[in-house]
Amino acid sequence: MTLSPTPRSTIKRGKNRAVTDRSALHAVLDAGLVCHLAVVVDGAPVVLPTGYGRDGDTLYLHGSTGARTLREAGSGVPVSVAVTLLDGIVYARSVFDHSMNYRCAVVHGTAVPVTGDEAKSHALRVLTEHLSPGSWEHARRPSARELAATSVLALDLAEASVKIRTGPPSDEDEDVEAGIAWAGVLPIRESFGTPEPCPLLPEGTAVPEHVSARR
Amino acid sequence: MTLSPTPRSTIKRGKNRAVTDRSALHAVLDAGLVCHLAVVVDGAPVVLPTGYGRDGDTLYLHGSTGARTLREAGSGVPVSVAVTLLDGIVYARSVFDHSMNYRCAVVHGTAVPVTGDEAKSHALRVLTEHLSPGSWEHARRPSARELAATSVLALDLAEASVKIRTGPPSDEDEDVEAGIAWAGVLPIRESFGTPEPCPLLPEGTAVPEHVSARR
Repeated sequence: MTLSPTPRSTIKRGKNRAVTDRSALHAVLDAGLVCHLAVVVDGAPVVLPTGYGRDGDTLYLHGSTGARTLREAGSGVPVSVAVTLLDGIVYARSVFDHSMNYRCAVVHGTAVPVTGDEAKSHALRVLTEHLSPGSWEHARRPSARELAATSVLALDLAEASVKIRTGPPSDEDEDVEAGIAWAGVLPIRESFGTPEPCPLLPEGTAVPEHVSARR
Repeated sequence: MTLSPTPRSTIKRGKNRAVTDRSALHAVLDAGLVCHLAVVVDGAPVVLPTGYGRDGDTLYLHGSTGARTLREAGSGVPVSVAVTLLDGIVYARSVFDHSMNYRCAVVHGTAVPVTGDEAKSHALRVLTEHLSPGSWEHARRPSARELAATSVLALDLAEASVKIRTGPPSDEDEDVEAGIAWAGVLPIRESFGTPEPCPLLPEGTAVPEHVSARR
């Protein structure tokens, strides 16, 4: 299934950076940790970061049942979600051609509240395993009270676009020939540091492998 | 000047994570590289990543003059901008208390197109020096044609909120006492890799210090 089936999810600017296969969408979503959710509240857009998880072509978002933005997002109104990964800073010979290397997925649709203990529990498992693979097995699962206090939305990935920029700067030929400046890419890398155990853990508690071996 | 002067920029959820001094807002904006801009287009929210730069209490955003979302964003309608920095994954004893350590700034307002060569040039300098400090001096400055092809918006930082989570998980007392799982924080670090020179550069061109020494 290809992406961009509607006008608003068809990339007009920078078409050469548009990617149209669904596996690219999945790859960007799977590589990110946080998304930015936009919803209209009282006539104005509100954008907020939230955790998410993907199961097939469903994106799950969650938060507290008390969060107004999430309540609004689940009330049948259109929403937009973006996941952006920065890969590098593109230094060009001209200021104008400076850029960034990045991977970005944008999804448009209507988010639906996930209801029923079984469906909610499944969604929370997907969300948990995205944020912290291994935690669903390792940590205490949600109680009925905790399930009730968590709001989960499901957003279909049918309408989405992916934009990716890679590689060196695209300078004007005359700037390249004039040799006026250094040009290239400064890569951006995200990595995990040394785990910091909770101070309330008993002394000498080993860090489990799902945390220590995470890359 | 404190933050949160209006209801929509007053944080209701997780009040203990709200920060109300303006220097915290500036610090989050200065530490990020990309923002997420939300605007309403044809009645639906659209969220997109874009570059930005800050000068005092003005946030500059830019893009191509052909980008519809940017044109809409500068047409006098309300916009929302978020900058989010992820600092760690919070592993709790319960799935429910899993979280993230982060710093997030959200700005609400009306973006105004920056016009006039002098004002535009100043804004582009701010944007360039945010993305790639040193490039304004090192690289070729924008030509009149390039200035005309660049759309720059200015957004006042008057209405903004900052939310920060730091530290270990906040588990329930019974989960801590039961010692049911490992708990702690897996820090997330962003760093720059080795500069990758443009293949069109003459062999042996030295990497300038504003790139090689960037941290």
